[in-house]
Amino acid sequence: MKIALDVMGGDNAPDINMDGAKRTLQDFPLIEKIYLVGREDVVRNSCDRWGLSGPRVEIVPAAEVVEMNESGLMAVRQKKNSSMSVSVDLVKSGDADAVVSAGNTGAAVAAATIKLRLLNGVERAGIVTQLPNEFGVCNVTDTGANPDAKPRHLVGYAVMAGILARTVYGKPVPKVGIMSNGSEDEKGTDFTKGTFALLKHLEERGVLPFEFVGNVEGHDLFEHEIDVVLTDGFTGNVLLKTCEATAKAFGKWLKMELQANPLRMMGAACASGAFRAMKTRLSADAVGGSPLLGVKGVTIIAHGSSSPVAIRNALRVSMEMVHTGVNPLIEEEMAKLGTIPEISEVYPK
Amino acid sequence: MKIALDVMGGDNAPDINMDGAKRTLQDFPLIEKIYLVGREDVVRNSCDRWGLSGPRVEIVPAAEVVEMNESGLMAVRQKKNSSMSVSVDLVKSGDADAVVSAGNTGAAVAAATIKLRLLNGVERAGIVTQLPNEFGVCNVTDTGANPDAKPRHLVGYAVMAGILARTVYGKPVPKVGIMSNGSEDEKGTDFTKGTFALLKHLEERGVLPFEFVGNVEGHDLFEHEIDVVLTDGFTGNVLLKTCEATAKAFGKWLKMELQANPLRMMGAACASGAFRAMKTRLSADAVGGSPLLGVKGVTIIAHGSSSPVAIRNALRVSMEMVHTGVNPLIEEEMAKLGTIPEISEVYPK
Repeated sequence: MKIALDVMGGDNAPDINMDGAKRTLQDFPLIEKIYLVGREDVVRNSCDRWGLSGPRVEIVPAAEVVEMNESGLMAVRQKKNSSMSVSVDLVKSGDADAVVSAGNTGAAVAAATIKLRLLNGVERAGIVTQLPNEFGVCNVTDTGANPDAKPRHLVGYAVMAGILARTVYGKPVPKVGIMSNGSEDEKGTDFTKGTFALLKHLEERGVLPFEFVGNVEGHDLFEHEIDVVLTDGFTGNVLLKTCEATAKAFGKWLKMELQANPLRMMGAACASGAFRAMKTRLSADAVGGSPLLGVKGVTIIAHGSSSPVAIRNALRVSMEMVHTGVNPLIEEEMAKLGTIPEISEVYPK
Repeated sequence: MKIALDVMGGDNAPDINMDGAKRTLQDFPLIEKIYLVGREDVVRNSCDRWGLSGPRVEIVPAAEVVEMNESGLMAVRQKKNSSMSVSVDLVKSGDADAVVSAGNTGAAVAAATIKLRLLNGVERAGIVTQLPNEFGVCNVTDTGANPDAKPRHLVGYAVMAGILARTVYGKPVPKVGIMSNGSEDEKGTDFTKGTFALLKHLEERGVLPFEFVGNVEGHDLFEHEIDVVLTDGFTGNVLLKTCEATAKAFGKWLKMELQANPLRMMGAACASGAFRAMKTRLSADAVGGSPLLGVKGVTIIAHGSSSPVAIRNALRVSMEMVHTGVNPLIEEEMAKLGTIPEISEVYPK
């Protein structure tokens, strides 16, 4: 298995990626090769510093870099020789099985969608992000690929993320819900109600390869065993960043309170194992990267502020997705689903 | 000042409301009277149990109760004699200056909007919820009154929540941002981009009574001094519940980790002051209730799971809003704003 790594992607590139690649090669012998894609001088220099050499790494030069604040679509069109584009090209040509980038998410989505194209039966690609909960993870889809989504796109996300929950996270019959402003069936916007109606229709036709549990709310993310939460890419992105921000603020304020006097500081020292365990439990590092589901070839989008451990785990996720063959299963299940009706046929406004 | 309290509203009615009313009367002499609205036998019985009597309480009978899962609009139309409807009627008739309810949010919004009607210049009412942050609070608007909002509604929310930030939270020039999927100007959906274009247009006309800071993200809620965050009622509701759920999960998991062994338990006991301080800091009780801005008369919507302290603070918020005269200011500023252009005039798709 060969994986292309966008060495220039992320806030702390290139070091974070090189460090992550080194850890990956040590931990996963299944990975035959990592293509290190980026500006040749930068990558070569980094390889020396990180002691990366031998047959399991290969430098692939790419003269340009997509900046974090660029328009994704424009970046793909104008910077044909960016580390991100060249990384995706390696998957397109069949040289690599997967691509991992911590760079500009919009550009990664655009590059993968335009160059690799969508799987048969898939109308839109979606990013699925794993939130840790008491039952494993909740796969929130989409967290940013498709902000102005249509209900039928969410049906595709349900099938794709359901397959991920089944194959990678071991849930034989994944529970899939729609993120709404209340758990009652009648809650939501026209968009979520349309999605609800489509999924109900397909459920009645008996073609859903998962259990549809209806509308869910914030607390379902952590307290209940919901394997997939469906949402448009805008709401999903707000939800994800709100989660991260709340946990970060909680941690910061708790630290301040624990340092407020010597007794608390002593107590915190005794209980330090608990805080370390919390850090591990909540760390985005453990998840590493979010798969972009629906495109041909495996594309993993890592957080811009990824740590080396996160990059290592993003590479691990890409390996697992290639290994479990998620994409052929998606095409198979989308074919079984049959035609998704027009929204007007099932949800007359 | 006289306030109507929907005694039957909330998951733990009536006791929670009676307890909250008792605390309020003890703490705030400015409140002349609380109308206790609900089923007469229930309220009378509760008054005996809570020792509430004298000229500062008055029982107002209302035979029906709106359940938490009812459709708001239907409840208002069909249950004309519900505790919620009768409470709002007291404001309409001028007997009460404000109404507080921990009942069905949709019904409270519908009752207030239909019976009290909107302030001059206001097109839609919005719920503003205060999230605690390092600078005081962030006023998130709307958190659920208007799920399918239009960009021009958010302009109204900006003015209304800005006035609240100025008068109640002491920010002379409130900073107002749009919740989006990235902080760059070009990020967002057609809806947020339309809102952005409208606010930019009005900023250029020099009529905004606040500072427009553009798009904001999750971390801005806690880390930056943003006084008002604008969002449609669907996204705002998801955001709010995600915040609550994340903080709750964090607290629960931390407690589990702290109880994992005797050393940690001893440490936690020494540092218990820090955990109590966190609980106070994050508690929704301190905020108490969310004002429904834009309707004539003051309407405060409390959380269904409110504690007595939360009800007491919801009553305090209603008192502050009546006292500071937020509503006349809203009408004044909406008039100064002039005509809000059609979205097609400022944001050609």
